[in-house]
Amino acid sequence: MKRIFVCLFSLVIFSAVKAQDIPAINASMNKVKLNFMLDADGKPVYSVFYGNKAVINNSYLGIKLANDSAFDKNFALTGSEKTDVDETWQPVWGEVKDIRNHYQQVIVHLKQKNAPGRLMNIIFRVFTDGVGFRYEFPKQAGLKYFTVADELTEFSLTGDHKTFWIPGDYDSNEYQYTISPLSKVDASVLAKSATDIAVRFVPDKYGIQTPLMMKTVDGLYINIHEAALSNYTSMQLHVDAKTFKLTANLVPDAVGNKAYMLAPCSTPWRTIIVSDKAADILSSKMILNLNEPSKIENTSWIKPMKFVGVWLEMQTGKSTWNYADRADTLGADGKLIPNGKHGANTANVKRYIDFAASNGIGGVLVEGWNVGWEDWFGNWKENVFDFVTPYPDFDVKAITDYAASKGVKMIMHNETSGSATNYERQMDTAFRFMNKFGYTSVKTGYVGKIIPRGEHHDGPWMVAHYVRVAEKAAQYHVMLDAHEPVRPTGLQRTYPNWMACEAGRGNEYNLFSSGNNPGHETIMPFTRLMGGPMDYTPGVFNINGYSTVPGRQIHTTLAKQLALYVTMYSPLQMAADIPDSYEQHMDAFQFIKDVAVDWDDTKIVEAEPGEYITIARKEKNAPNWFVGAITNENARNAVIPLDFLDKDKKYVVTIYADGAGADWKKNPETYQITKCLAKSGTILNIKLANGGGAAISIKPAAEEDKGLKFYK
Amino acid sequence: MKRIFVCLFSLVIFSAVKAQDIPAINASMNKVKLNFMLDADGKPVYSVFYGNKAVINNSYLGIKLANDSAFDKNFALTGSEKTDVDETWQPVWGEVKDIRNHYQQVIVHLKQKNAPGRLMNIIFRVFTDGVGFRYEFPKQAGLKYFTVADELTEFSLTGDHKTFWIPGDYDSNEYQYTISPLSKVDASVLAKSATDIAVRFVPDKYGIQTPLMMKTVDGLYINIHEAALSNYTSMQLHVDAKTFKLTANLVPDAVGNKAYMLAPCSTPWRTIIVSDKAADILSSKMILNLNEPSKIENTSWIKPMKFVGVWLEMQTGKSTWNYADRADTLGADGKLIPNGKHGANTANVKRYIDFAASNGIGGVLVEGWNVGWEDWFGNWKENVFDFVTPYPDFDVKAITDYAASKGVKMIMHNETSGSATNYERQMDTAFRFMNKFGYTSVKTGYVGKIIPRGEHHDGPWMVAHYVRVAEKAAQYHVMLDAHEPVRPTGLQRTYPNWMACEAGRGNEYNLFSSGNNPGHETIMPFTRLMGGPMDYTPGVFNINGYSTVPGRQIHTTLAKQLALYVTMYSPLQMAADIPDSYEQHMDAFQFIKDVAVDWDDTKIVEAEPGEYITIARKEKNAPNWFVGAITNENARNAVIPLDFLDKDKKYVVTIYADGAGADWKKNPETYQITKCLAKSGTILNIKLANGGGAAISIKPAAEEDKGLKFYK
Repeated sequence: MKRIFVCLFSLVIFSAVKAQDIPAINASMNKVKLNFMLDADGKPVYSVFYGNKAVINNSYLGIKLANDSAFDKNFALTGSEKTDVDETWQPVWGEVKDIRNHYQQVIVHLKQKNAPGRLMNIIFRVFTDGVGFRYEFPKQAGLKYFTVADELTEFSLTGDHKTFWIPGDYDSNEYQYTISPLSKVDASVLAKSATDIAVRFVPDKYGIQTPLMMKTVDGLYINIHEAALSNYTSMQLHVDAKTFKLTANLVPDAVGNKAYMLAPCSTPWRTIIVSDKAADILSSKMILNLNEPSKIENTSWIKPMKFVGVWLEMQTGKSTWNYADRADTLGADGKLIPNGKHGANTANVKRYIDFAASNGIGGVLVEGWNVGWEDWFGNWKENVFDFVTPYPDFDVKAITDYAASKGVKMIMHNETSGSATNYERQMDTAFRFMNKFGYTSVKTGYVGKIIPRGEHHDGPWMVAHYVRVAEKAAQYHVMLDAHEPVRPTGLQRTYPNWMACEAGRGNEYNLFSSGNNPGHETIMPFTRLMGGPMDYTPGVFNINGYSTVPGRQIHTTLAKQLALYVTMYSPLQMAADIPDSYEQHMDAFQFIKDVAVDWDDTKIVEAEPGEYITIARKEKNAPNWFVGAITNENARNAVIPLDFLDKDKKYVVTIYADGAGADWKKNPETYQITKCLAKSGTILNIKLANGGGAAISIKPAAEEDKGLKFYK
Repeated sequence: MKRIFVCLFSLVIFSAVKAQDIPAINASMNKVKLNFMLDADGKPVYSVFYGNKAVINNSYLGIKLANDSAFDKNFALTGSEKTDVDETWQPVWGEVKDIRNHYQQVIVHLKQKNAPGRLMNIIFRVFTDGVGFRYEFPKQAGLKYFTVADELTEFSLTGDHKTFWIPGDYDSNEYQYTISPLSKVDASVLAKSATDIAVRFVPDKYGIQTPLMMKTVDGLYINIHEAALSNYTSMQLHVDAKTFKLTANLVPDAVGNKAYMLAPCSTPWRTIIVSDKAADILSSKMILNLNEPSKIENTSWIKPMKFVGVWLEMQTGKSTWNYADRADTLGADGKLIPNGKHGANTANVKRYIDFAASNGIGGVLVEGWNVGWEDWFGNWKENVFDFVTPYPDFDVKAITDYAASKGVKMIMHNETSGSATNYERQMDTAFRFMNKFGYTSVKTGYVGKIIPRGEHHDGPWMVAHYVRVAEKAAQYHVMLDAHEPVRPTGLQRTYPNWMACEAGRGNEYNLFSSGNNPGHETIMPFTRLMGGPMDYTPGVFNINGYSTVPGRQIHTTLAKQLALYVTMYSPLQMAADIPDSYEQHMDAFQFIKDVAVDWDDTKIVEAEPGEYITIARKEKNAPNWFVGAITNENARNAVIPLDFLDKDKKYVVTIYADGAGADWKKNPETYQITKCLAKSGTILNIKLANGGGAAISIKPAAEEDKGLKFYK
């Protein structure tokens, strides 16, 4: 009955678009099916199905060129090719050891009937978990250099889906997610009220950002994003609240253009991930698969790690980035007048190095080390920092020597204040400085309006800039963690030294603003993290001790902070709190010490966006597993069958759970640690408090664990 | 009678503006007088007189700030200071050995009556040959970072002056000059028809460029320009054709702003040079005097010179910049397919080196040496050149070694194709390359639309860029010759390694387009060259042999090409023609061999813009004089009293004059060389042909010159 209904439905849809008489073009992989045709005007049209359910109704495809508006219709089909690919590759680091890239590809060759008979191909790749497609412009006589004025890609959705969205802001992804039907999207209201975000630019009231997560009334989970964004601009989506049609809205450059191309070339991939299980969205490797293999040949120097940082103390006002209170008031000696609260001083940094060394934490980040912080933000000024001149109380040589003697890596901080031109001028000098002093990774920052003025964080010039930084960093064997960049699109496959990005609302908002809803971390893996790892800065133990402002606290329990090390994937994971906080909870801190940052395998145990996520991961080249389970503001029981464990081994399971009476708001810091034995087949059943979570480490049992009881 | 009339006239003008009751503020130096007052609305007003003649009627002053439109009125005078300065300084190189800086300065301290009581000073400097003024913003509580939205400076002229103008183009100064009354200015028509200029952007029909040269009906010569333009944008002028009021029109950046300032700071100087003698305009040092002294301490490596170049052969199509015809078509070996016409090949370059070495020419420029020229122009692309990768037929090591063995300096060429961001990323690498291979100077180029996109050649971002290049070049001890930059404003005083600029319509237009009117070179010193030296590339001997296109020829006689070495001042002077051409006229080439490029003294013998110029200059640290005399399309007699010669010496005078029947169009290459004796008091009387000129070298007579006859 249902099947017949669906077939009729799709017939109705097809009848709305009068097709040309061309051979049927389609591709499929398991339940996912892609159809392509040209309509009577020669406009390309596609649709996507999941089993019998329409995911994308007939939707137009096309590109609008500057000085030539006619690259969207009047096409004839000159041929098509179908290929099946099934291969497996190994990422330099990642959530799994082996990634299967299994798809059916259809290339549609189109030629415009009008002169000069321009060529455009559309490449579709159909995976078991979705469809990717891109526009390709072959080498041809009638098209060489061209400017993209707009992309006319549509995603015609089948209903008023439940949507997890943030505004289509050209400069920031750091919003709370709104859960609403598509028809209720209003980006302007949200942008206006988000006063905790420094730079906002949301020109379209109905514009929203990708990765966009949706759920249909009949239980389909749909995620729309893009892959392999480099020589182009980023795609946001315009919502038609009545027809539920989404249209590509490319972020413009300073003169309103979207991309400058030279054929042969292609656009980024547009990705539609779909499943009837939410967990499949999280385990999808489609976006990575649609990216190019590593451009870096020797990757032996690229190493995931955990780090602490002289950072939270500034975020909470305990110390300052700036050395003096004013740049324009000098002392009798003609120098800056120290304010006595500067965080990045040699003695303080050494304390962090000591803490890292004592606890097996690989790196120490120090912000506010270089001159310029007195006057760094909000003035749209070209030259702010020089990236090589430390404040007088930061002895770079002594610090890097000390860190080296302790086996700790220092992490460079290069805040650009949005002046990308200034950074580009000085990048070589900055990276030579890192090489000289042994910094093997850098955290970049783009807080502020972008220079070149008129460009945006997510626009084409900056998209290219972030890639240039990754390439330059690779040239100097430096790992990159970019803050405030465009949201990632899987480029970490191509540039595996680009370890993580912020590009989303991090844990820091819990420190300096009204914070993140307790459900926030159950949405992020379905949205922001679809493109790549996030430097979310988890692990704050001092949940409500940093501020007297009402509501300013971490919006989770302490145990949930631990769980985030597993649920918020990143090969660079910060232990964000200060050593003093950790030293009061060394039993809980043990999990952060133990947890891995690189993985052989990952199991999405259970997940529902906005509600809960439980993930189990196996440590790279080790038999240990780590599990994170989190919930939103509602308590729940996490049920975790340990069916992924080796059948012939016994394991020690250490459970870091919310304590009795725990509640993210009323009683966030209570936790209980339980140690017991378990084996494959054991089913853990763990209570997560309101806004709570649990972290679990699972290691093969050793001789001394004999006395432990089995889990029950 | 006249005097009375003028006084009445100025009374009329003053009555139109109701003044506040503040003390009279004025300053004067010889005939030049400056008056300042506040009107009834507290708006600053100034006027300028030359003797009894009004030069600038009452004109408003002010700055409009972004987010604050009220920085132009409601001022109260809080005080003023008057200072007299008379000092003499020595330029690193120049037209004279000593420069007298003699002025009376008035600083007017203004405070706005409305909150927050912002402060602005206006600094006037009155010289014997004009007035300079600038806005200054002191350190103050109510103003720190600010954005200039507009400048409200006016220049109310007294009549419909004869004006030598080019359009107010944000991207090019390479126009022919139009001579018309102010009321007839129409920039749009001219911009539209100037199809020989690649990139043009003229938004204001009544917008014109500075330096602006004018002549009044009662015989005043007035020049308006600016000095010391660095952290600001360039000023063009809007003409009110009815009132003859000029208004500052600042070139905007990509978002429409004009400058980003941090108090304390000041704007560039606005300059009004005035005299009743045209020659005084050419000898004015006001613009240099208003610039800051050299920021480069050790200037011993900065050396003026002449050079030849593998350049004209490309301009005339004899050879090509590009090595291959197509970038996207490779040979069987996977490499570019040579077109066989590439100019920058090792053997050809060595011929130029040989020629330079044989003739005492200091440098050899080579364009088209680095990969990328197949596809370099017109595509607004970010990455074009890398500035360090030679074409396979250009052996940089062999060439620089060969040049060094011959005592010749190679001149680097860095064409950016307008992508300043790309150049900034690679500048350090480019200059290290120059240092490695011994290049001591660089010719930069900015052909094409600017990147950052939305910026203009004359806008604030590029103004800062050119200065950054000069500073970077100085850091590497490299001399700079910038092509297609903003027109100069005397910054060569501050950055004496910034030897020359193009920034105007050079001799090259005679090679590849319909060319320059014969009067062009009689206007350029009154306009473009007021700001600084021009790399005009004189010295083309093959006047009409390069093209069969009608009218495409050099629009001068051969003798006039020689005269330009004196009349078109530059410390870097090209001998622009190819060795083959020179070898056919080695007698005439002797003048180019002999002429100096750095001077102890300069005498403007006679001059009238658009008609004629005769200049005599004394070689630096030598007793030799060189004279250049040029005319427009009309023949004339140049009368040159040699009253500048030492009274007790005899001199040998070699006159390179137009030959009998010479005419720029009909018979341009005929010339006659006369050698004779002369002394102080001798008056040369030399016939200049239509579009002709004469060059004269004057050296102390030696023993072997005894037999020569005296001039008569």
